[in-house]
Amino acid sequence: MDTMETRRAVRLLIASWLPLAALYAQAPPPLISPEVHPDGKVTFRFNAPNAQKVELRREGAAPVAMEKDERGIWTVTVGPLEPDLYGYTFVADGAAYLDPANWLMKPNLLNPQSMVHVPGPKTLPWEVNHVPHGVIHRHFYHSDVVGDDRDFYVYTPPGYDARASRRYPVLYLLHGYSDDASAWTAVGRAHVILDNLIAQGKAKPMLVVMPLGYGAPEIARRGGPGLRDPQAWRRNIERFRDALLKEVIPLVEKNYRVAANRTQRAIAGLSMGGTQSLYTGLNALETFAYVGAFSSGGLLPDFDKVFPTLDEKANQKLRLLWIACGTEDRLIEGNRKLLEWLKSKGVKYTWVETPGAHTWLVWRRYLAQFAPLLF
Amino acid sequence: MDTMETRRAVRLLIASWLPLAALYAQAPPPLISPEVHPDGKVTFRFNAPNAQKVELRREGAAPVAMEKDERGIWTVTVGPLEPDLYGYTFVADGAAYLDPANWLMKPNLLNPQSMVHVPGPKTLPWEVNHVPHGVIHRHFYHSDVVGDDRDFYVYTPPGYDARASRRYPVLYLLHGYSDDASAWTAVGRAHVILDNLIAQGKAKPMLVVMPLGYGAPEIARRGGPGLRDPQAWRRNIERFRDALLKEVIPLVEKNYRVAANRTQRAIAGLSMGGTQSLYTGLNALETFAYVGAFSSGGLLPDFDKVFPTLDEKANQKLRLLWIACGTEDRLIEGNRKLLEWLKSKGVKYTWVETPGAHTWLVWRRYLAQFAPLLF
Repeated sequence: MDTMETRRAVRLLIASWLPLAALYAQAPPPLISPEVHPDGKVTFRFNAPNAQKVELRREGAAPVAMEKDERGIWTVTVGPLEPDLYGYTFVADGAAYLDPANWLMKPNLLNPQSMVHVPGPKTLPWEVNHVPHGVIHRHFYHSDVVGDDRDFYVYTPPGYDARASRRYPVLYLLHGYSDDASAWTAVGRAHVILDNLIAQGKAKPMLVVMPLGYGAPEIARRGGPGLRDPQAWRRNIERFRDALLKEVIPLVEKNYRVAANRTQRAIAGLSMGGTQSLYTGLNALETFAYVGAFSSGGLLPDFDKVFPTLDEKANQKLRLLWIACGTEDRLIEGNRKLLEWLKSKGVKYTWVETPGAHTWLVWRRYLAQFAPLLF
Repeated sequence: MDTMETRRAVRLLIASWLPLAALYAQAPPPLISPEVHPDGKVTFRFNAPNAQKVELRREGAAPVAMEKDERGIWTVTVGPLEPDLYGYTFVADGAAYLDPANWLMKPNLLNPQSMVHVPGPKTLPWEVNHVPHGVIHRHFYHSDVVGDDRDFYVYTPPGYDARASRRYPVLYLLHGYSDDASAWTAVGRAHVILDNLIAQGKAKPMLVVMPLGYGAPEIARRGGPGLRDPQAWRRNIERFRDALLKEVIPLVEKNYRVAANRTQRAIAGLSMGGTQSLYTGLNALETFAYVGAFSSGGLLPDFDKVFPTLDEKANQKLRLLWIACGTEDRLIEGNRKLLEWLKSKGVKYTWVETPGAHTWLVWRRYLAQFAPLLF
């Protein structure tokens, strides 16, 4: 087909597209929300003509009132915001809604939200750069331990080649309560952060395995026992550990070229996943040499019972115990108590206290700080 | 740690979890929506205390009025519904909302929705079975053709091994207008359908590559030219073809063990993707021997110009030209005109006319019918 023919063809194709265009035609014209302005201000718009009061509730910020115009559209412009990714909802008369005009969604089993990206300098760890990119693999399997069909994600670094002899270390990276297995990539941008760190030579090329973190999935089901049923919570902790050690790790080590020894395995996670990393990792130093806990919850004063074998001998095996929490996170007190206990036992750790609350703004930064310390 | 120690440890861990539980505590108690009953009826609930009128708008069905209770919760029970996956939104006073209580979301660049799964017999192609599962791989790359950073998904069948010598055929599977590259897996369950067909011996093990279908991404951006700008539409068609042929296919053939010849390549898609499959595929029979168009839009009467070299000689190269449309789809007329023209040119095709409209209910079934005919 020469160029002129092509042009005619496409012109005709366009004409004929109209029936499909009609199929998608909408009245009234679609809202634009969020609108990120060049200066970092963001305008949010929400159509709720009969609502009496609407607020924007944004991750890491106090709610902000929105104002209604004559068409029933509620609007607010905030910022300039620091470049980042922010989860948000609109709260109208007490009920939370996703932004129907925004395709970028934050998956979550209990509180799905919309998400806005305020772009920033390419030096920010979560900004996509023109560097080699790794691949995200999603695996499906039936868990005999938990008794369900579930998934886990695997990030392979740029240049990973299943046919080559090189073997890679693995970070097992756990999400928080109410997240699903996609959270660390969809919200945490772990793949982008690793791509950038590896391109800069700051982190070793590694695999990152992101399993579903529920040993008792019913705790994250709306109308289920949630966090209030101690038996469910116990199943959640124990069965997750078992599923990880007996199912996920063997599947990863069978399917990927990874180094199957403790000095090449790390475990870390956020919130519930931080607790699971401590509980699973510090009780299995024959499996993990690196443990990270980001804003972890579920810490308790009687650590002797949770970590019955942990003492200063662990320092020979533990290459890194990295514990971090934001100063505005109400979970910081529990973390500080853990530090005191670790000190009393002679167990070495790294403590990182940063600004911030219990949010992904903090956890993306923690991953960017933690990954360079591994392997 | 012996069993008793473990029990004590976890009991204590539970007690200490309370601060995190408090962090997630919500009042009032969360809604349950959708609630799928054992008989296939589904109850939808939506909190919109000041709305005057709320409807459930469900994929493939007429809107249904919801009723408000004394707490301001709108409810409707529908069905029993045929087992399937249905996209839906709540339309309150004319504006569409996702279901804030439902974690299962239907990604879409213009009209994200919620989704409900009404489970059915395991013989349905999209139901997860205890069969070997393939893997979904998400790749990221910079497209020089389009000028953006984008992704594509690759399904590898169960047993695929990059280290083995076996080479697999590839189906390039294209989404519709306003979808993103995740649509065929997140909504279409292509990976589940292929897992099942392969396990039953009905489809050959194959890779399925699902690229982002926009040569001109601005046409699917809210507030962008949409479908109404012919120049943008032309760029969309041509640049998509170029990105597929010059970027995606070479990347796939470099990174996977696939058979790089026309008899082992198929191209198919839905709606816009059907048109792209016809336009790209039928003008590149040196690259594709199988072409499928599901409910395609953008067909026109002057096919001589769109397919200037297509005539009965194509029958020697085309192993399958499979065209399907639902009888309730307003795009069916354009499809019928294409059939007439193909007949007049002596080009062989398979025409499949089914019940159904322009919905994913139809497209999942088409994939389940089409894949067994390949390779």
